[in-house]
Amino acid sequence: MADEFGPEEELDEQHLAELKERVETSPFHQWSGMRLVEVGHGRARVEMPLEDHHLNPQRIAHGGIIAAIADTAIGLALRSVLPAGHTHRTAQLNVHFLSKGEGSRLIGTGRAHHRGRRMGYGESEVTDDAGTTLARASATFIVLPAPGAF
Amino acid sequence: MADEFGPEEELDEQHLAELKERVETSPFHQWSGMRLVEVGHGRARVEMPLEDHHLNPQRIAHGGIIAAIADTAIGLALRSVLPAGHTHRTAQLNVHFLSKGEGSRLIGTGRAHHRGRRMGYGESEVTDDAGTTLARASATFIVLPAPGAF
Amino acid sequence: MADEFGPEEELDEQHLAELKERVETSPFHQWSGMRLVEVGHGRARVEMPLEDHHLNPQRIAHGGIIAAIADTAIGLALRSVLPAGHTHRTAQLNVHFLSKGEGSRLIGTGRAHHRGRRMGYGESEVTDDAGTTLARASATFIVLPAPGAF
Amino acid sequence: MADEFGPEEELDEQHLAELKERVETSPFHQWSGMRLVEVGHGRARVEMPLEDHHLNPQRIAHGGIIAAIADTAIGLALRSVLPAGHTHRTAQLNVHFLSKGEGSRLIGTGRAHHRGRRMGYGESEVTDDAGTTLARASATFIVLPAPGAF
Repeated sequence: MADEFGPEEELDEQHLAELKERVETSPFHQWSGMRLVEVGHGRARVEMPLEDHHLNPQRIAHGGIIAAIADTAIGLALRSVLPAGHTHRTAQLNVHFLSKGEGSRLIGTGRAHHRGRRMGYGESEVTDDAGTTLARASATFIVLPAPGAF
Repeated sequence: MADEFGPEEELDEQHLAELKERVETSPFHQWSGMRLVEVGHGRARVEMPLEDHHLNPQRIAHGGIIAAIADTAIGLALRSVLPAGHTHRTAQLNVHFLSKGEGSRLIGTGRAHHRGRRMGYGESEVTDDAGTTLARASATFIVLPAPGAF
Repeated sequence: MADEFGPEEELDEQHLAELKERVETSPFHQWSGMRLVEVGHGRARVEMPLEDHHLNPQRIAHGGIIAAIADTAIGLALRSVLPAGHTHRTAQLNVHFLSKGEGSRLIGTGRAHHRGRRMGYGESEVTDDAGTTLARASATFIVLPAPGAF
Repeated sequence: MADEFGPEEELDEQHLAELKERVETSPFHQWSGMRLVEVGHGRARVEMPLEDHHLNPQRIAHGGIIAAIADTAIGLALRSVLPAGHTHRTAQLNVHFLSKGEGSRLIGTGRAHHRGRRMGYGESEVTDDAGTTLARASATFIVLPAPGAF
């Protein structure tokens, strides 16, 4: 990972636990069914049961659902290696859809590749529970000082 | 628009009405609250009330929601100018997030720029009800013959 | 254009003339044949004669050449509305190739859509001299204070 | 790699040698100094000495040069696993610029991730000779039957 922050500036265990908690209780994540399974050291894993209302008229997972998982996985991976007192906002998200999502569960794994004082960058992969790669994504983030935030 | 199909091959009024109907009754669109307001001649407009469960922990519209609107608006714009007997699938979606989504309604307007026998391309803009541009997006589609489909 | 700088902070005529001069004398632009034709108020136009050595083995303009024009046109459009004392660097560039480039000249027109204190965003179109759209592109830029630069 | 072609349909040694030869003698590659070092089995490696005329006015490798290497590396990686009698054309290229290119040589390594009958997808990384990652890129390709081509 290309770095402008030191490794000791990553979020500590306490902050990571609070981050999981915050995702758990967020209205968006409750509504969508997305759950943060694992986060830390520039990696994150989110999961979501694939339900009928996630499907488009062709009966495959809607691109927006896959984009939501891809974005969340990268954002949380990056968040885990930013110092407390900062926040990040997605500036740009690019998603390549490679196979139809038809399994019963979607899994997003994100990885931070660059964390700078102004910009962060990461990538993610979305698979179904059979291990098929549904999508690969990349995203650019603005990094902002935000006292008290993490 | 760069074209490989003739203009007379666009969807007719009957098909467009059926397309609206299909979106209306799709589980994803009912669940997300997204509604197809207008479609035809390579353009589409979708709308969605912005509700609490669309917000991320920072209280702004989740990037995945904006991506879903952007993707849908471009896809339907393209769909309106493909001949019946074809289908399209998003191959790639790129979204630039420009302002925080904080209004009470999100509006996506899509436009087809290229329709070929193998690939389609279009762009969309997502605004809130105050007219602020929240995002600009572009997408590549695979175009496939699919007898009976539209 | 979504803004975080005031309009009076745009580059003035003197700086724009120096910007043109700088592009004119840059080794990359001399080597590639790219010329800055017009710049100011968030717009830029660059041109390049299409020569044999710009073609790939299929005898169409190499994607890298089109990407170079697309990137330059957006970057200079954005540069024209950033205050002196700042610099910008492309963080991400997305190009959609829509038609084969086969004319005798390539023209890139760029437009800034957002200029903030940390990030800028713009779009461009590349056409040939017959007016055919060869590509449409978008780019994210990091904006940095850089005393003395423009 | 997600596949719609069989592995036995990849280019054989004879075709790969001819592919190298074709790149070697292409006017674009001679002019730009880009060389195909290795290709086969869905991977390709290209290299380019970084010369003065590749630099932009800030004295770092121009984004267009990096995009050219990224595009070429992915395209040739994909080309190596398409059956003879087909051709490919870049439909979309997305490049993330992560560090300034300042070394004496640029290296692009590409990898095919999906090869279908209508669309291919791959990724690449561009580094300098010190091993610094300058950019990461992804691209979508149209796959076309083209009798006699490879």
